[in-house]
Amino acid sequence: MTRQQLIDQIFAKGTYLCVGLDTDPDKIPDHLKGQPDAVFEFNKAIIDATKDYCVAYKINTAFYEAQGLKGWEVMDRTVRYIPATHFTIADAKRGDIGNTSTQYAKAFFEALPFDAITVAPYMGADSVRPFLEYEDKWAIMLGLTSNPGARDFELLDCSRRQDVLVDGVHTQPRAEGKLFEFVLQKGVEWGSSGNLMFVVGATQAAAFAQIRASTPDHFYLVPGVGAQGGSLKDISEAALTADCGLLVNASRAIIYASEGEDFAQEAAAIAQQYAFEMKGYLDGIRRI
Amino acid sequence: MTRQQLIDQIFAKGTYLCVGLDTDPDKIPDHLKGQPDAVFEFNKAIIDATKDYCVAYKINTAFYEAQGLKGWEVMDRTVRYIPATHFTIADAKRGDIGNTSTQYAKAFFEALPFDAITVAPYMGADSVRPFLEYEDKWAIMLGLTSNPGARDFELLDCSRRQDVLVDGVHTQPRAEGKLFEFVLQKGVEWGSSGNLMFVVGATQAAAFAQIRASTPDHFYLVPGVGAQGGSLKDISEAALTADCGLLVNASRAIIYASEGEDFAQEAAAIAQQYAFEMKGYLDGIRRI
Repeated sequence: MTRQQLIDQIFAKGTYLCVGLDTDPDKIPDHLKGQPDAVFEFNKAIIDATKDYCVAYKINTAFYEAQGLKGWEVMDRTVRYIPATHFTIADAKRGDIGNTSTQYAKAFFEALPFDAITVAPYMGADSVRPFLEYEDKWAIMLGLTSNPGARDFELLDCSRRQDVLVDGVHTQPRAEGKLFEFVLQKGVEWGSSGNLMFVVGATQAAAFAQIRASTPDHFYLVPGVGAQGGSLKDISEAALTADCGLLVNASRAIIYASEGEDFAQEAAAIAQQYAFEMKGYLDGIRRI
Repeated sequence: MTRQQLIDQIFAKGTYLCVGLDTDPDKIPDHLKGQPDAVFEFNKAIIDATKDYCVAYKINTAFYEAQGLKGWEVMDRTVRYIPATHFTIADAKRGDIGNTSTQYAKAFFEALPFDAITVAPYMGADSVRPFLEYEDKWAIMLGLTSNPGARDFELLDCSRRQDVLVDGVHTQPRAEGKLFEFVLQKGVEWGSSGNLMFVVGATQAAAFAQIRASTPDHFYLVPGVGAQGGSLKDISEAALTADCGLLVNASRAIIYASEGEDFAQEAAAIAQQYAFEMKGYLDGIRRI
């Protein structure tokens, strides 16, 4: 999916919600448990019920890998079931040396038909670039994440000497910033606003305005709303752009809204609430 | 597998070689290509031919995921085919927020029977700890990797204020180091030498002595020998300990040693050469 197609969907539907399919067989409603195809039936019902209120689905690959071969097969069918109008994200946090990242890109962009994959940046340029070589596909690099562990490395104070040429003289001033800021800066070098997004956690609202100032054109995938406590209002006020620029994900708050037979209706109701709130923020910035 | 079992295997066999099964269907010998179970047959032949010369096998999950559902099924059968005497590593570079890393641990330690998984540290403590909660299983955290992109973030100059209590007075001196050094330090806090190893690339020989000094008790998984150009001699001289402390991986140099029908014999010959060289280094440090 292209950037323009994604933006068109967002403004046509008035929502930038991404529904996270972190489906855990132990947490689905009792009446589905033990059925031969329970996870797929659950996902199908969630997708049918929520598709009018969201523009994207994010499949958390860990929950499928944990079920072994059967899980991978259910992931395959689930992503193919998602309507072509919706942006599909493999939340897989992959990244390895170049020749191996090439294989991961093949896994999620060829063997599976995802539009995007989340990518861990630790190993640097050659671990990210293979994901950027596919037309109309996206890498979503981890920037500042929503979890407590973000403090361990992402927020470290970092610096690097940079070669600067002023009036024919080379100088090497130190660039300073947090690790995640260096990651954002490299991401902007490696990709474009048409093939690279960043993960910025909803629990990091205080940092959002500054992050938006440093990467004004890029979309952010924002997890952490709902179960993790992030505020949709805060992040929308700080980071919405004229192109929207946000995909806000909720997983557990939507898919586990009810443990009963009404789980899909309840999921739809929560998704509709998010979409309603989002429409308000979009109306505030909508272009004429 | 416990640390002592691994050490016993190493000294009994006189090798610390890990064979990397980065099996690419396009690179296997012509006579196997197109056969219905070519990748598994290739892996089986490589394992049968090399098992006397190595103590570990590393399965690079990307190469199997790239083949879709069939690939995951072949990975499953391959890891189960590896003899129980050998340490098995899922080279999967996983890591996510706590509840998701728990699912990845389940995927590789329960649904699949791996002894160890490689873990990307970017997201911090809660992304790594779930892998450390399994008895006799291992997390292998990325430290300083072998690829060119290691320069982008792993070698950034970093600092953090640390609270230090001296004679009843709190001070906050700045701890300084490269990012990978902060990662090694946190790894030592989170895990023990009995459940955590580090990835240190063979191309980083200059840094090895210093890394060994800062983490004297931990095993390192060392990729980058062979196709990537790292020297077995340099890393062994700099980082072998009385417990060995190294698993040195070669993938392409062994499994693609020949494109002919003799691929398994040629793989064995190369593995035997590595093992022969390793025995010399082990004899130099062997305990009485």
